[in-house]
Amino acid sequence: MKKEVLFVILDQYADWEAAYLSTCILALGKGDYEVKTVSLTKEPISSAGGFTVLPDYDLQSVPAEYEALILIGGMKWLEASALAVKPLVQDAVVKHRIVGGICLASAFLGVCGVLNKINHTSNDLAYMQEWAGDNYIGAANYIKEPAVRDDNIITANGTATLEFTREVLLALDIAPESNIVEWYNFHKLGFYNAPMPKMP
Amino acid sequence: MKKEVLFVILDQYADWEAAYLSTCILALGKGDYEVKTVSLTKEPISSAGGFTVLPDYDLQSVPAEYEALILIGGMKWLEASALAVKPLVQDAVVKHRIVGGICLASAFLGVCGVLNKINHTSNDLAYMQEWAGDNYIGAANYIKEPAVRDDNIITANGTATLEFTREVLLALDIAPESNIVEWYNFHKLGFYNAPMPKMP
Repeated sequence: MKKEVLFVILDQYADWEAAYLSTCILALGKGDYEVKTVSLTKEPISSAGGFTVLPDYDLQSVPAEYEALILIGGMKWLEASALAVKPLVQDAVVKHRIVGGICLASAFLGVCGVLNKINHTSNDLAYMQEWAGDNYIGAANYIKEPAVRDDNIITANGTATLEFTREVLLALDIAPESNIVEWYNFHKLGFYNAPMPKMP
Repeated sequence: MKKEVLFVILDQYADWEAAYLSTCILALGKGDYEVKTVSLTKEPISSAGGFTVLPDYDLQSVPAEYEALILIGGMKWLEASALAVKPLVQDAVVKHRIVGGICLASAFLGVCGVLNKINHTSNDLAYMQEWAGDNYIGAANYIKEPAVRDDNIITANGTATLEFTREVLLALDIAPESNIVEWYNFHKLGFYNAPMPKMP
């Protein structure tokens, strides 16, 4: 049985926020990992970049066993229909799975009430407070950093795709830290400034 | 009629190489542009990150009119089946369309013989020379830069996704240069180091 990492993507999801993490999980995962997409239904959705994606699961068919739940940003998190994802987030937290949220999806974690006792970040504190209302009382632990990992929960702003990737890979313990940092540097600094990472 | 930008993606294409460019074209294109995907057939393909994508066109159904042809990297460019894309590349060059290739797909442009008289780059000169053989005699114009634009042809290495995006957006003349550079800086430097770009 491969370990499944679930990427929750809604229509118009932000392509760039999923791209590095999904590919690094499969590249570093030595065949032990699978990436699966989850959406509200199994109907095709369109990415923000106009790619048509067929989700692997709808919310009803998500398997009970999975390694991590990753929520990818996009404007549709603001719509009422997105609240249907809340039970899945709460299930992941109860099971102490790795949970990641980036961009608007990090604020959705605030809406779900899971950022109240841990260090975290998002796109903007005031924005999350206004959106989440009483569900979010974690302002004292809001950190102005690109990505923040607190135990099994990782949050990031929408420009911090590589930092989000690094922190989720570290949480998964998918490869030695030095190897994960090599991949981060390769993409962050580019081919002419960082060595090609070794394959695991 | 919207202007179509065609992204050629083969099975196991590199998600990160398409993500910024596709989303920026739609974000900056003010509703005038469409992103369409092209693959060898219309059957679903899997990205390198494990996302299942439904191509909009197969090679037979590509429209005669399009604004740009963008080849996204991935290992499948090395397979004989990819040579079926060569006539589409040559059509784009003859029509003087914008043509972009990143990572292995930039070397495929060398295989197609379209890098012989222009400034260009790729992942590695020796690699492209070995692969392309007699089709590539452009070594004198190979430039060791993340991305290179020469008139309507843009090439980049596989870590230069943002530079590739910037150069293709400039070639498309999709927005004022200052606006394109704002978007580049926002993603390159991140939310804490660069201002949020204005929407066009």
